[in-house]
Amino acid sequence: MENKLYLQLTEAVQRIKPFDEQTAMLAERHSDSLTKPPGSLGKLEAMARQLAGITGQLWPDFTRKAVIVMAGDHGVCDEGVSAFPQAVTPQMVMNFLNGGAAVNVLARQAGADVVCVDIGVNADLEHELLVSRKVVRGTANMAKQPAMTREDALRAIMVGVEVVNEQVERGFRLFATGEMGIGNTTASAAITTVLTGLSPENSVGRGTGINDAAWLNKVDVVKRAIAVNKPDSSDPIDVLAKVGGAEIAGLAGVIIGAAANGCPVVIDGYISSAAALVASQIAEETKPYMIASHLSQEQGHLKQLESIGLSPPIQLEMRLGEGTGAVLCFHFIDAALHLMQEMATFESAGVSKG
Amino acid sequence: MENKLYLQLTEAVQRIKPFDEQTAMLAERHSDSLTKPPGSLGKLEAMARQLAGITGQLWPDFTRKAVIVMAGDHGVCDEGVSAFPQAVTPQMVMNFLNGGAAVNVLARQAGADVVCVDIGVNADLEHELLVSRKVVRGTANMAKQPAMTREDALRAIMVGVEVVNEQVERGFRLFATGEMGIGNTTASAAITTVLTGLSPENSVGRGTGINDAAWLNKVDVVKRAIAVNKPDSSDPIDVLAKVGGAEIAGLAGVIIGAAANGCPVVIDGYISSAAALVASQIAEETKPYMIASHLSQEQGHLKQLESIGLSPPIQLEMRLGEGTGAVLCFHFIDAALHLMQEMATFESAGVSKG
Repeated sequence: MENKLYLQLTEAVQRIKPFDEQTAMLAERHSDSLTKPPGSLGKLEAMARQLAGITGQLWPDFTRKAVIVMAGDHGVCDEGVSAFPQAVTPQMVMNFLNGGAAVNVLARQAGADVVCVDIGVNADLEHELLVSRKVVRGTANMAKQPAMTREDALRAIMVGVEVVNEQVERGFRLFATGEMGIGNTTASAAITTVLTGLSPENSVGRGTGINDAAWLNKVDVVKRAIAVNKPDSSDPIDVLAKVGGAEIAGLAGVIIGAAANGCPVVIDGYISSAAALVASQIAEETKPYMIASHLSQEQGHLKQLESIGLSPPIQLEMRLGEGTGAVLCFHFIDAALHLMQEMATFESAGVSKG
Repeated sequence: MENKLYLQLTEAVQRIKPFDEQTAMLAERHSDSLTKPPGSLGKLEAMARQLAGITGQLWPDFTRKAVIVMAGDHGVCDEGVSAFPQAVTPQMVMNFLNGGAAVNVLARQAGADVVCVDIGVNADLEHELLVSRKVVRGTANMAKQPAMTREDALRAIMVGVEVVNEQVERGFRLFATGEMGIGNTTASAAITTVLTGLSPENSVGRGTGINDAAWLNKVDVVKRAIAVNKPDSSDPIDVLAKVGGAEIAGLAGVIIGAAANGCPVVIDGYISSAAALVASQIAEETKPYMIASHLSQEQGHLKQLESIGLSPPIQLEMRLGEGTGAVLCFHFIDAALHLMQEMATFESAGVSKG
């Protein structure tokens, strides 16, 4: 089974096309003909270039876009790492499905769908809008044993790939990553420490808002999880299985799936960026498909993004997750494409060049 | 005449109401009842609080919003400070009026109007959409003499106040600042040096994209303008007149006018922030009405914003002006208000508190 899953993952990675430099160059040339000093729209011009290189189209159509919100529980909550009880994970999943969470509001504003996936919640959930793809009923407590088996980690990655495949079938062409899982900043900190070399003191943040004593405990829990499980830093799937989570693995799959389908994927905050780190180490080919959104208040976030080579345009001091920062970035992606399509050129507007 | 204008300005400043702390507190309390850790939406929550305190309403209606683009020419262009010829100012004004500039595209996306004001262009302009309020036909060369008389500076400020009054009459309640004027980063650098104490080496930037030699010349021009005119740093109107520009004075007026009408005003980049510096020194009461948007590539921008006490949420490495960064920030203002009005509360969604 594990070998079959690994083969499926390899097939997905092999579907990723190299970045189309030629179309990207055409986008850049068009951008330079528009009525503004060359480069003066900064990252919006870089985005237009990137979107062209990803899709092979100068004017890709992102009318249908979605934030994939993966939800999972974490056994490490037994160690008292969060300010909120574990029951909040299924409660918030129902909130997503009923349209009342922050990500729902922001997605509506941006014209995006919220696709909520139960990939590892420790509760029985039913809702007509829920995508039920449970791989585990919460992870095990990583401070004492591996969070998941390697097979479960692979299975969760493939759920992410398949969810994207399904949405692409339905016409969606632009994705954002989102998540819910009480305890998942702890798992993300452990992944970040193993994959970037950042110390737990620098990778562990305040999550939903813990105090100093709880933060010290959280640092200790991350250290123990790494000491007990000895994740292999050269094997991102081993890291995911031992100190990760189902929703983090699922999001790594979403990123790989988006790239495999030639679709850009906007990376949200700390947990999503842990998934992006994993995805980039499973397949470096995913990197050109990623777009950074916001810089979270979680202290390890910048290091994660830098490790991937991403630079976030939004600094709203947010620390909510769910995909909220990524969905806000959809406005900038729309802006980049509107500018490319609607601005006058120096020639058409009769404006002198510098 | 000068005294009459000064009286009108004083009257506008006296119309500015103090920030409504009580309504702001109600907004904060509501925000804390929503399904998210308190404060986790960062500056979006701060914005919702600020908008409530500005308007005295928990759910202010900003359906009608506008970016006021003030255009003016600069005699200092004779010193070779810009990469573009002065003729580009009127050409770009026509581009704004015909809907082809970057700010038009971004304003359409954000559901905002572009109000283009000829306050100091050195050309005869006609267009049904143009607001013709010319105070000067370009400024004089500040490297040799004052850019404007004190009376013209006051007149330009009052044009800004009146343009906002007119738009408020038409139902607009949210404003952004924008500008066009070849040479106006030079004037803005001189203002910034005088009002913040930043050296010309640190306040002069690359503008539309000048090379090293041109940058050295621009620094020298700013030094000469200050040495020749000796602007009084304790008198912001003196600074505006001697080393400013009509569109910068007009934008200071827009900011004062917005505050006088109880409307928030989003500050764009380097030139707009020079105007904001001036407005905040004419009337400190304007500060709570200002919302920062993006951090420009102009090196002195951060210092300007810090001097006013503003912190920009957008870092897109832009350096275009026109109001482009401010209009992008409208999406965040909409987001803050949508979140306040549409998110479920812990109680309504049955989510456990931390």
